[in-house]
Amino acid sequence: MRAAEIDEEFPVVDIDSPAVDAARMLAEHCLPGIVVLTADGQLYAVLPASQVVRFIVPSYVQEDPLLARVLAESVADRALDALGGKTIRELLPQQRRRLPIANADATILEVATIMGMMRSPLIAVMKQGKLHGVITASRLSAMALKCALAGVAGKT
Amino acid sequence: MRAAEIDEEFPVVDIDSPAVDAARMLAEHCLPGIVVLTADGQLYAVLPASQVVRFIVPSYVQEDPLLARVLAESVADRALDALGGKTIRELLPQQRRRLPIANADATILEVATIMGMMRSPLIAVMKQGKLHGVITASRLSAMALKCALAGVAGKT
Repeated sequence: MRAAEIDEEFPVVDIDSPAVDAARMLAEHCLPGIVVLTADGQLYAVLPASQVVRFIVPSYVQEDPLLARVLAESVADRALDALGGKTIRELLPQQRRRLPIANADATILEVATIMGMMRSPLIAVMKQGKLHGVITASRLSAMALKCALAGVAGKT
Repeated sequence: MRAAEIDEEFPVVDIDSPAVDAARMLAEHCLPGIVVLTADGQLYAVLPASQVVRFIVPSYVQEDPLLARVLAESVADRALDALGGKTIRELLPQQRRRLPIANADATILEVATIMGMMRSPLIAVMKQGKLHGVITASRLSAMALKCALAGVAGKT
């Protein structure tokens, strides 16, 4: 089985859309992460849910995480509107990370290896430089189990 | 808001159960990860989905990831039954990672900070040394948005 056969459509967000939209997508659809595109449809970032959550942490806390532990509950709760009015572009880390991508013809084993190494629950499948679809860890597990079962059946 | 007020029940697996059960849980319930307990109910590991996927990658490929790219499709598909018959304990990394945990009285801001720093889509909430519940990135986003909205309402 090849990546392009098992990938799926996945919600994408524009890099200049409000960051609150990304947090809302995560909250409402229980997504494992988000896929960020530029205005011309190029893949810009694939953020695991844990990194989307960073959007709600004000920069002064990100720089000094121990602060999170000492702030009073009322102050901490108020700090959560850090993403108010900001775009995704403004909240992305300055340093761009390597993209968790696989070619359309990658095997499931290759996709699983990339996923494990990059600690990304989402792999963007690229075909001729364009986003073809996304493979989530859940989808990959389901397909791998199917393959393994077929293998066992094949041996008998 | 405090961690123990927003955490939820979450499926757990025993460290000595078949690894295939963990992959199946991920596949069937679209979980962001799994929570592994010891036989006496102690928290042992919190694995993000991307690391559960590692279970299906044979150790010889994990040691030499470039192999994944060169194996023929038929060989790669067969390799996927690496987890056949193995327990979760056998497939966990030798070196135990720091647990993504928060105290029951941690604020949402603190949980978000831990989640972002540890790149874990799941935070185990501990109360008196025991697992009280789990906060997923989706749940945390939902609660943070609620708090932020309440903050905005409070200001008007």
